[in-house]
Amino acid sequence: MAVEKTMDKVVALAKSRGFVYPGSEIYGGLANTWDYGPLGVELKNNVKKAWWQKFIHESKHNVGIDSAILMNSEVWVASGHVGNFTDPLMDCKECKSRFRADKIVEEHMTKNGVEKASADGWSNEKLKQYIVDNEIECPNCGKKNFTDIRQFNLMFKTYQGVTEDSKSEIHLRPETAQGIFVNFKNVQRTSRKKVPFGIGQIGKSFRNEITPGNFTFRTREFEQMELEFFCKPGTDLEWHSYWKEQCWNFLLNLGIEEKNIRFRDHDKEELSHYSNATSDIEYLFPFGWGELWGVADRTDYDLTQHQNHSGKDMSYLDPVTHEKYIPYCIEPSVGADRAVLAFLVDAYDEEELEGGDSRTVMHFHPAIAPVKAAILPLTKKLSEKAEEVYDELRKDFNVEYDEAGSIGKRYRRQDEAGTPYCITIDFDTLEDSTVTVRDRDTMNQFRMKIDELKKFIKEKMEF
Amino acid sequence: MAVEKTMDKVVALAKSRGFVYPGSEIYGGLANTWDYGPLGVELKNNVKKAWWQKFIHESKHNVGIDSAILMNSEVWVASGHVGNFTDPLMDCKECKSRFRADKIVEEHMTKNGVEKASADGWSNEKLKQYIVDNEIECPNCGKKNFTDIRQFNLMFKTYQGVTEDSKSEIHLRPETAQGIFVNFKNVQRTSRKKVPFGIGQIGKSFRNEITPGNFTFRTREFEQMELEFFCKPGTDLEWHSYWKEQCWNFLLNLGIEEKNIRFRDHDKEELSHYSNATSDIEYLFPFGWGELWGVADRTDYDLTQHQNHSGKDMSYLDPVTHEKYIPYCIEPSVGADRAVLAFLVDAYDEEELEGGDSRTVMHFHPAIAPVKAAILPLTKKLSEKAEEVYDELRKDFNVEYDEAGSIGKRYRRQDEAGTPYCITIDFDTLEDSTVTVRDRDTMNQFRMKIDELKKFIKEKMEF
Repeated sequence: MAVEKTMDKVVALAKSRGFVYPGSEIYGGLANTWDYGPLGVELKNNVKKAWWQKFIHESKHNVGIDSAILMNSEVWVASGHVGNFTDPLMDCKECKSRFRADKIVEEHMTKNGVEKASADGWSNEKLKQYIVDNEIECPNCGKKNFTDIRQFNLMFKTYQGVTEDSKSEIHLRPETAQGIFVNFKNVQRTSRKKVPFGIGQIGKSFRNEITPGNFTFRTREFEQMELEFFCKPGTDLEWHSYWKEQCWNFLLNLGIEEKNIRFRDHDKEELSHYSNATSDIEYLFPFGWGELWGVADRTDYDLTQHQNHSGKDMSYLDPVTHEKYIPYCIEPSVGADRAVLAFLVDAYDEEELEGGDSRTVMHFHPAIAPVKAAILPLTKKLSEKAEEVYDELRKDFNVEYDEAGSIGKRYRRQDEAGTPYCITIDFDTLEDSTVTVRDRDTMNQFRMKIDELKKFIKEKMEF
Repeated sequence: MAVEKTMDKVVALAKSRGFVYPGSEIYGGLANTWDYGPLGVELKNNVKKAWWQKFIHESKHNVGIDSAILMNSEVWVASGHVGNFTDPLMDCKECKSRFRADKIVEEHMTKNGVEKASADGWSNEKLKQYIVDNEIECPNCGKKNFTDIRQFNLMFKTYQGVTEDSKSEIHLRPETAQGIFVNFKNVQRTSRKKVPFGIGQIGKSFRNEITPGNFTFRTREFEQMELEFFCKPGTDLEWHSYWKEQCWNFLLNLGIEEKNIRFRDHDKEELSHYSNATSDIEYLFPFGWGELWGVADRTDYDLTQHQNHSGKDMSYLDPVTHEKYIPYCIEPSVGADRAVLAFLVDAYDEEELEGGDSRTVMHFHPAIAPVKAAILPLTKKLSEKAEEVYDELRKDFNVEYDEAGSIGKRYRRQDEAGTPYCITIDFDTLEDSTVTVRDRDTMNQFRMKIDELKKFIKEKMEF
């Protein structure tokens, strides 16, 4: 029997098992902020580690950086964020609710069966006209009395130094990418990399979203994993395909079901004016398909903008051909929180067991499972031997120790945490140094030498 | 001959080799912000990983979390940050320079041989009086015409949502600790931990310092590694000693020279009113002894504040003795950027070599070295075999491949990066599958089977 996965179920499990708690909960929360609990932080760290492993360490092309969240304001003028990083904002004059006008229009389109419901890039006037023409009502109170539409900049402002005048106004970065672009020459020079090469970064970004929501899918504070891959103009579409495939395989290799992801290519109207091609990998969340990974061919737009705005040369001199050019850039960009949400949703399952019993189980790939193994002494009399195994495995993996309750109960707890292997210490262990290993997914059990556990777990973690 | 380590030398190497660049450099920078380059991000990630390994995974007491930077403002009222997280600010009326009055007083004390130069906790009036009585001059222009002293709150303010009124005013967290305290009950409940247990977190914090400086030692944006360890009242001083020792050993085990660290216990006047004991581990930076790791016994102050302010019960019920109490808390708190700076400074060395040559070498412990090994084909003819070794090692470690220039030159480059092992592929390699391994510190060379490289490196990384 197929079980319906709902966001409510995933959110409830996330909270009860310590994956994700509401932020600032004892004070009634703060908008749509979330805190990762003991299982959640391990899951998220594992996802970030896996990304770094595949996109930085295992790629001979790429290196990493970690640039500051606070940047000189000129960065955001050059990148276009000061001028254009806005959402169309509209209020209901009756109930004072606040909306994104483009979302209201798109929802109306979807309801009325428009196939590609997109108001991307529409002017304020065009949006307003559509709302009036189609007599769209306020989603909250049902009236039709909206304010004009105005553009709202999504960057968080703050002030550094001890005065609050415009000179000291700075922004929290809305993306990690610009920290890479402004360091292009620094990294190229010091790492002695030759084009094509990439620079990756994992870090927090902030966007003052008008309507955050859908659990951790859209939050004002979020973490990105971005790669900017620099290549010779003309080779960019080839590299675009290459990185699309790398991203796709990353998800499949970490256990995402293929039926739950799809590519969506941006068509000409939707493409940014500077982009040669953009494809999103979308994931089928319980609330519908949502963007997970954007893979954009940004041409030489960003480096050129910074060259023009800073007056610094951002070109690359090919040491072999002596050609000088501003590289084109392919940007695979994924939200770490969104990726974690996709892994949470994908892993979630409820299963009927023999004998009328049932279990909730998280089928994480061992590489990203928060806990790799649980050590379960059959009785407390065996705790000395069990702790010995626990102490040894803890040096290499995040493992848990549980001696409370029946073995069946302990299995259920580890199933909910997504622990791939339960290791039971019984009286035979004292005799022959073997343990019972129970596989989370198949629930099969087999005996194994204690000495072989590390190698076994390590191999299962490969992806 | 002992070489003088200066900050200038460390900063210059950091920039030229890609450890740390000035932030937003192409736009003239931004105050004292810094970006970690390809070597720097690996070093910092390794330090964070080492901390997580020792303080979370290998400790049977502790679990981790990752809470949001943006928190409900009530958190900072309860914690005392809204009321008391301030620095005494003073301007020179002549040259308009801005200073921390307490630092001016402390510098004057130090110059005049006062042993414990501390103005910690002095009132504005007391500071002013001292400055007047001692006829202290402006460090910038030499005049004696200061403004009154006022308290300046160090929290960065921003606004969430679409209006900029006081209702939507929030702060960037000035410490990660409060994200742990507000989640105490959530974590205890979901992880089923029993007191004593700890909750650790690594994350960015922000303080609007009046005078940031000394490279990455004091920056407005910085990353913390904090553990809040909850224990039964009365056992706190014992646990305070335990964690002091753990922190001390962490530094020694990762290669910090013992002569460069010391404990400094806060005396009674310096202690916060709620603290039972606080000890700092200080590191001898080129600019003097500086705080690296604070280990504070915070008693039940934070949980009690949140209980009173939120109205939520923050106590713990002992399941065995049925005693109910608010746990005491030991807080070992270290800045990740400061720790990285200490490791950079400690590793730095210049050595005279035989034959009048010299080298700059970074003696990082292999666990934190950015690059674990460099693969160097003796000639480009050997690149196929060399890439084979490179591809295999990259699956487990961050390794570099370098075929440019003489072997000697390549060794020097890896010495500056702090790469512990250079692996040379020569023509014998094709015959007998052995390589030459060159040790960074001793510069000794020995031959080893390719098959044994992974195990060799992995063992050297243990700490």
